[in-house]
Amino acid sequence: MSSTTAKSPDASRRSERSRKAILQASMELVGEVGYPKLTIEAIAARAGVGKQTIYRWWSSKAAVLLDAFTEVVHDENAEGSAGGLPDTGDIEADLKYVLRATADEFSDASFEAPYRALAVAAAADPELADQFVSRLREPGVRVYTERLRAGQEAGQIDPDLDLDLAVELLLGPFQQRWLNRTGPLTHEFTDGLVELAMRALAPRGAPR
Amino acid sequence: MSSTTAKSPDASRRSERSRKAILQASMELVGEVGYPKLTIEAIAARAGVGKQTIYRWWSSKAAVLLDAFTEVVHDENAEGSAGGLPDTGDIEADLKYVLRATADEFSDASFEAPYRALAVAAAADPELADQFVSRLREPGVRVYTERLRAGQEAGQIDPDLDLDLAVELLLGPFQQRWLNRTGPLTHEFTDGLVELAMRALAPRGAPR
Repeated sequence: MSSTTAKSPDASRRSERSRKAILQASMELVGEVGYPKLTIEAIAARAGVGKQTIYRWWSSKAAVLLDAFTEVVHDENAEGSAGGLPDTGDIEADLKYVLRATADEFSDASFEAPYRALAVAAAADPELADQFVSRLREPGVRVYTERLRAGQEAGQIDPDLDLDLAVELLLGPFQQRWLNRTGPLTHEFTDGLVELAMRALAPRGAPR
Repeated sequence: MSSTTAKSPDASRRSERSRKAILQASMELVGEVGYPKLTIEAIAARAGVGKQTIYRWWSSKAAVLLDAFTEVVHDENAEGSAGGLPDTGDIEADLKYVLRATADEFSDASFEAPYRALAVAAAADPELADQFVSRLREPGVRVYTERLRAGQEAGQIDPDLDLDLAVELLLGPFQQRWLNRTGPLTHEFTDGLVELAMRALAPRGAPR
């Protein structure tokens, strides 16, 4: 597998405009045609740049897409509190807020379609899965782990918990509903999921 | 979407042999070439039957595959206690036993590869997803719901629980690890998952 490290784009405004157009075009196109049929040629045409401009900065379509999604995730985190989940002091309320927002995001086709295309491609391809997990999933999971750790310090989360497993318990059912289409991503679902998971995550002996 | 109802196969021994060969060939091939490239022609050639034999009984490759997996699930359930999960009276032990066995099954490539191919295809195709969920997932989930209901009657599961959500909490993290390859499906993982989920599912106020 070729490296996914983007070559550092020229800092000039024109380069930056091209870079953003390429990332945007890759997201749009993968949602329209799926990952297997996505080509660098089509991305270049949609972005209004030459193929060589893309190859100068990225080694493959996977590298372009992973940068595109990483940027979306980065922009979202930048909107939150210092790149993490909100911390109002009430972890159950904070998790409900975030999962409701995530459900809303997944009901937006301009995000959902490309993300699904990439997730499907990663499920079929172990090498893409490696990159998908390390570039996109792990940073996304880390903000939950950190929020749960703060919850441990505040006495709202069991101090002995395996936080990685705790995040899987919280996010796995959401992911499964979404990817396998086993049910709708309503706020009723996400609220119920947080309430049920919190029964497992709260300190033993805490009222529940 | 064409109907997936299999035409009733001729009951003769020869027909039954052909039917089983077709189902077996469809499982092998989808694991080898993936769902998009699977053809009725290739299934017929591998099974040693004519194309028309397949079209007499099934309307599409999706219908063949769904029958093939339904048969696997049915055979497995037939091995268990009256088509359900084991019930030794200790729900945590029973769930650990079943999830360990499921993890072992998913580490068998002859099952894993075709099942992944079908899950990936369903994630990309809403109509196939409908059939995947109703024909394969719902019967698989129902045995968990029934085991949890028996656990409610035995006082080991919270009587007020939404059992559908409870099953999602238990199986979602497993499915996510498997489909997104976010971690290994070890017995340590499945045991830990059952222990953590049981903290949420046990009656409120029960020792935990």
